[in-house]
Amino acid sequence: MVVVMGERATEEQIQRVVAQLVEMGYDVHRSTGATRTVIGAVGGGPKGDPRLVEMLDGVAEVVRISEPYKLASRTFKRDDTIITIDDLRIGGDEVIVMAGPCSAESEEQVMGTAAAVKRAGAKVLRGGAFKPRSSPYSFQGLGEEGLRLLRAAADQHNMKLVTEVMDASQIEVVGRYAHIYQVGARNMQNYSLLRELGRTRRPVLLKRGISATIEEWLLSAEYVLAGGNMDVILCERGIRTFESYTRNTLDISAIPVVRHLSHLPVFVDPSHGTGRRDKVAPMARAAVAAGADGLIIEVHCDPDHAMSDGAQSMFPGQFEQLMAELRIIAPAIGRSICLEPVARRGWGF
Amino acid sequence: MVVVMGERATEEQIQRVVAQLVEMGYDVHRSTGATRTVIGAVGGGPKGDPRLVEMLDGVAEVVRISEPYKLASRTFKRDDTIITIDDLRIGGDEVIVMAGPCSAESEEQVMGTAAAVKRAGAKVLRGGAFKPRSSPYSFQGLGEEGLRLLRAAADQHNMKLVTEVMDASQIEVVGRYAHIYQVGARNMQNYSLLRELGRTRRPVLLKRGISATIEEWLLSAEYVLAGGNMDVILCERGIRTFESYTRNTLDISAIPVVRHLSHLPVFVDPSHGTGRRDKVAPMARAAVAAGADGLIIEVHCDPDHAMSDGAQSMFPGQFEQLMAELRIIAPAIGRSICLEPVARRGWGF
Amino acid sequence: MVVVMGERATEEQIQRVVAQLVEMGYDVHRSTGATRTVIGAVGGGPKGDPRLVEMLDGVAEVVRISEPYKLASRTFKRDDTIITIDDLRIGGDEVIVMAGPCSAESEEQVMGTAAAVKRAGAKVLRGGAFKPRSSPYSFQGLGEEGLRLLRAAADQHNMKLVTEVMDASQIEVVGRYAHIYQVGARNMQNYSLLRELGRTRRPVLLKRGISATIEEWLLSAEYVLAGGNMDVILCERGIRTFESYTRNTLDISAIPVVRHLSHLPVFVDPSHGTGRRDKVAPMARAAVAAGADGLIIEVHCDPDHAMSDGAQSMFPGQFEQLMAELRIIAPAIGRSICLEPVARRGWGF
Amino acid sequence: MVVVMGERATEEQIQRVVAQLVEMGYDVHRSTGATRTVIGAVGGGPKGDPRLVEMLDGVAEVVRISEPYKLASRTFKRDDTIITIDDLRIGGDEVIVMAGPCSAESEEQVMGTAAAVKRAGAKVLRGGAFKPRSSPYSFQGLGEEGLRLLRAAADQHNMKLVTEVMDASQIEVVGRYAHIYQVGARNMQNYSLLRELGRTRRPVLLKRGISATIEEWLLSAEYVLAGGNMDVILCERGIRTFESYTRNTLDISAIPVVRHLSHLPVFVDPSHGTGRRDKVAPMARAAVAAGADGLIIEVHCDPDHAMSDGAQSMFPGQFEQLMAELRIIAPAIGRSICLEPVARRGWGF
Repeated sequence: MVVVMGERATEEQIQRVVAQLVEMGYDVHRSTGATRTVIGAVGGGPKGDPRLVEMLDGVAEVVRISEPYKLASRTFKRDDTIITIDDLRIGGDEVIVMAGPCSAESEEQVMGTAAAVKRAGAKVLRGGAFKPRSSPYSFQGLGEEGLRLLRAAADQHNMKLVTEVMDASQIEVVGRYAHIYQVGARNMQNYSLLRELGRTRRPVLLKRGISATIEEWLLSAEYVLAGGNMDVILCERGIRTFESYTRNTLDISAIPVVRHLSHLPVFVDPSHGTGRRDKVAPMARAAVAAGADGLIIEVHCDPDHAMSDGAQSMFPGQFEQLMAELRIIAPAIGRSICLEPVARRGWGF
Repeated sequence: MVVVMGERATEEQIQRVVAQLVEMGYDVHRSTGATRTVIGAVGGGPKGDPRLVEMLDGVAEVVRISEPYKLASRTFKRDDTIITIDDLRIGGDEVIVMAGPCSAESEEQVMGTAAAVKRAGAKVLRGGAFKPRSSPYSFQGLGEEGLRLLRAAADQHNMKLVTEVMDASQIEVVGRYAHIYQVGARNMQNYSLLRELGRTRRPVLLKRGISATIEEWLLSAEYVLAGGNMDVILCERGIRTFESYTRNTLDISAIPVVRHLSHLPVFVDPSHGTGRRDKVAPMARAAVAAGADGLIIEVHCDPDHAMSDGAQSMFPGQFEQLMAELRIIAPAIGRSICLEPVARRGWGF
Repeated sequence: MVVVMGERATEEQIQRVVAQLVEMGYDVHRSTGATRTVIGAVGGGPKGDPRLVEMLDGVAEVVRISEPYKLASRTFKRDDTIITIDDLRIGGDEVIVMAGPCSAESEEQVMGTAAAVKRAGAKVLRGGAFKPRSSPYSFQGLGEEGLRLLRAAADQHNMKLVTEVMDASQIEVVGRYAHIYQVGARNMQNYSLLRELGRTRRPVLLKRGISATIEEWLLSAEYVLAGGNMDVILCERGIRTFESYTRNTLDISAIPVVRHLSHLPVFVDPSHGTGRRDKVAPMARAAVAAGADGLIIEVHCDPDHAMSDGAQSMFPGQFEQLMAELRIIAPAIGRSICLEPVARRGWGF
Repeated sequence: MVVVMGERATEEQIQRVVAQLVEMGYDVHRSTGATRTVIGAVGGGPKGDPRLVEMLDGVAEVVRISEPYKLASRTFKRDDTIITIDDLRIGGDEVIVMAGPCSAESEEQVMGTAAAVKRAGAKVLRGGAFKPRSSPYSFQGLGEEGLRLLRAAADQHNMKLVTEVMDASQIEVVGRYAHIYQVGARNMQNYSLLRELGRTRRPVLLKRGISATIEEWLLSAEYVLAGGNMDVILCERGIRTFESYTRNTLDISAIPVVRHLSHLPVFVDPSHGTGRRDKVAPMARAAVAAGADGLIIEVHCDPDHAMSDGAQSMFPGQFEQLMAELRIIAPAIGRSICLEPVARRGWGF
């Protein structure tokens, strides 16, 4: 931390600050200028709350100087993390698209949607079995039967499965079906859950909380990494702002910022980030153009009758159109989007 | 919901909207004006997502018309809820103050702080045993030993105990010691936890998430109420805004708004809401002046050496001074602040 | 407006609301459901403040139903507005790029930068002569001499000139040099200025205020349109959020939203929207991918010695690289980016 | 500024940073720790944009260390500024209340409201003659005739007059009638206006912009102070947040923060800060309890028929009740509220 003393700070006040810093375990560097003294404090232990210094007499300002996260930072690991699941590589040159319904509702719905998203180029099937709903009176998901349906559909179409785990007690059952655990925005700071996921050896897609700063998001990733699980995918899904036309404001600028601060792959969820089907395609294109490593998109074979979030689910045809647009954009930043054999033969478009 | 058709909407488009609403289970009222048609939809079931209508052709705007919460609203229950624990009444004429350390650290610290806050007029002891910390490298609390210390101190001073429960698996152990369960801001949308707390018969102090709207906060209360536990205390503790001088912006206006919308008592936490000891007293006074039913305040017998949040913990002397100020303010709104016999005899001030 | 009565509203309360609405000049439609009454109010005059009704007894909620802007809306004009200045077309198939220095500083700097941005494909030169600075102690611009230098450079390279007008008293002098008036974010609600610009017959580039909702932004455009000047270009430049890593959060989702609500062209300023040179290119690509009609970008021939905003100004080489990337992206959404003869011959890349 | 180098920064990178800082006019202090180097830079001139350093290779973080405002800060002037107009003292022990209608509408309305607010204890009459309205189709004020009516009413009741000046061209006419110039929230960064007001010798009440940080607000005050006019009253009136129940969120915590950073008096406008009459009283009480030097409140003798902002204007009886409550609260913080002879004799309550 750096402590800037006020212009009228006395020597006694400066000594008091130095003593406090030493007690907190810091190495102290003092630098005296014409008008004010600046004290640099390096090292320090877990009790190093900068506010304790901030309130001492004579202190003008206190500034934290190192990111409180370590394993998630580019300082710790310079090269991009690439997460491998069988032949799937997340974080490499290929932009990976995860797609599927908000919730598993029935075998027909899951199978139909999986076939459609696979044909358009999705590599991972998404879908929920346990749904966190803000109203206790809403549809709460199919539970384990939903997981079974999703995994069967993923296997049939040679895709991987990502699905949400809502608390630590669900890790075991979800782990029997999912290739990737998803942590929802509301759970970004559920530390019991994050700590347990750090003990698994399966990738975790960690959504940003709607009011989380980028630093807090990386600190939550740190909980998983600190447990020994290095496969964390960050996922931006919109932050809360005063603008109310869209449910949230998708923070596209978080993509280059996270890529600068961290080695972890960063995905974008334009479905929850906008809340409206007609805004998903423009924001998905924007995300890829800004450098996202992947997307997670809600697609439903019959969105008008979806049991949850139908309004933000794309029709299969819209999703195919979007994938075609993304294939044009990706090369602008030296990347590609998957192209399936069937598509290469010109079917299905 | 109310659907406003665009000025150029065709009869066919209007019919399509009416059909959709009927399918969603609504009673439909159509009202045709000179320039536009307005459709009122009343009733409706769990599939009534307004966005599904919003995207139909010809629709200009869709507006939800009833609060999605029921049991928490003043429409459901007109009179203020008063929560009784033995001789303690929360939500009545007396403004109730809960105070104590951020974390239980040692017997001496817990006992010393409890004695001090009791003397100044606190009726409930606060203190944490399991700490949710944003960094995995910070102090995480004493666990059950902390609970034991806190309860012993509360009993000795004839106070009740409020302490945080971090996930559903802790409900049982925390319940052996606490009179009131506290749900932290990060857990405001942890629905597994809320649902389980709804099955207990002990009061729940529910903090507002830092990016939660008032409506979402009341919906979270609804999860507890819907389980049959009607004793929920709402607690404002600051929302996230662009202003960075204070950690969060304490939303004092939420007090009169919640009192208008709901019958539940509303408390304020000026310690977390400001993050700085020197701002706690002004905001505590403001909260009482605005009509809060109570306060929860961090006090530490030695804040400079606190293991967490020392910077926002008051010294015992500051807390006594604040309580004296609050006793002047409360009558302005027809309320009182507790005055202990010892204080009435003029000791300790 | 639509008035939703509470479930327990009495007939007398309903009559009082109807009377108030009639007094405010509305046509009233009453619709009585099983549990509540909904009153639709159409028409109404300038005194129609919905809050006056909101506070009557028995009212649960009041909702405004029509956009308060008229001329700016797609309801008023269905086709995209295309603004023509000589052979330049803004709002058509070609994505238009405006580029240049933050401030005019010297003839050499202006000429050098103009030549560079022209070669890369910019069609409009941007640059400031009067600078609004948040500190009274900062560089305040060259004034009319700056305007003269900018216009000379634009003419020499066959570009148009856009420059900021800071208050109504500057309209005349700025109008002697600029092809397009720019209104800065801080002036978005300077109604005296907007009204005067409505009386000119020259295009106005209207930046969004950093805390303006999209509706307020369109209302500000309405001030210009209402004066008879139909050539308004909207320009998103970042909104204020809690995230502090970037100076502002560029609201890319505003692009598809504005294109849905309004017929006016929408531009993006990724330089002010991010405040950092290394984030300008990703956000510029994202803006074009999301459907922006154009960009306005700060480029400086020597950013390290710029007198203002050097940190967010691109080097000419970075700008050329960006333009090459945009030429790949634009076709994904059926658009093009200008390609100059010199560039087509392969020089300068 | 303080520059924190990354852990792997090379000596060459450090030298490059030092050279840049020296070129920018700073005195440089270098402090080398075990894992990283910290460089303190003191002094510096107008070109000292920290972002220019932030982008150099090897730099981990750059932190500004001194407030960019000078005359407004407590460092410059330790004692509270007290502004005197005849026998009125603003910023002293007495909490000053300014009250009156949103707009002057007629002689009867102005006189009636002035008499009522005077009787309840207001010392300054507020009222608008030129109205900044977000819609070009709304009532725009009576102009100079309104000023004349307001001043006559103020004189008759021995009050001072505060009224809004919307741009620099109005300073002269407004100055013929007003004792205090009011600068509205939308004009907080209208630097042409602020600069001109700095040349007058009359107090300026400067409202905080709805998205302005406290630092930006103080910088705007600096524009006035730098011109030689030292009589600035700061006025909090709500900031924009995601919460939409209230129009804005009144930032009560800004009161103690501003009183800590600056010597200028700080007022609160609970009428615009909440937008609803029924929330004005609780927030006014909160403001005084938190230490505000004064209030500015909209009162109308017939709010239901006000031409603007009737919904947030108090009835005279409500205002008298509020003043009585404030008289109870003020002593809690060692202050008083004015009590008129007529009131002391027990009339009019």
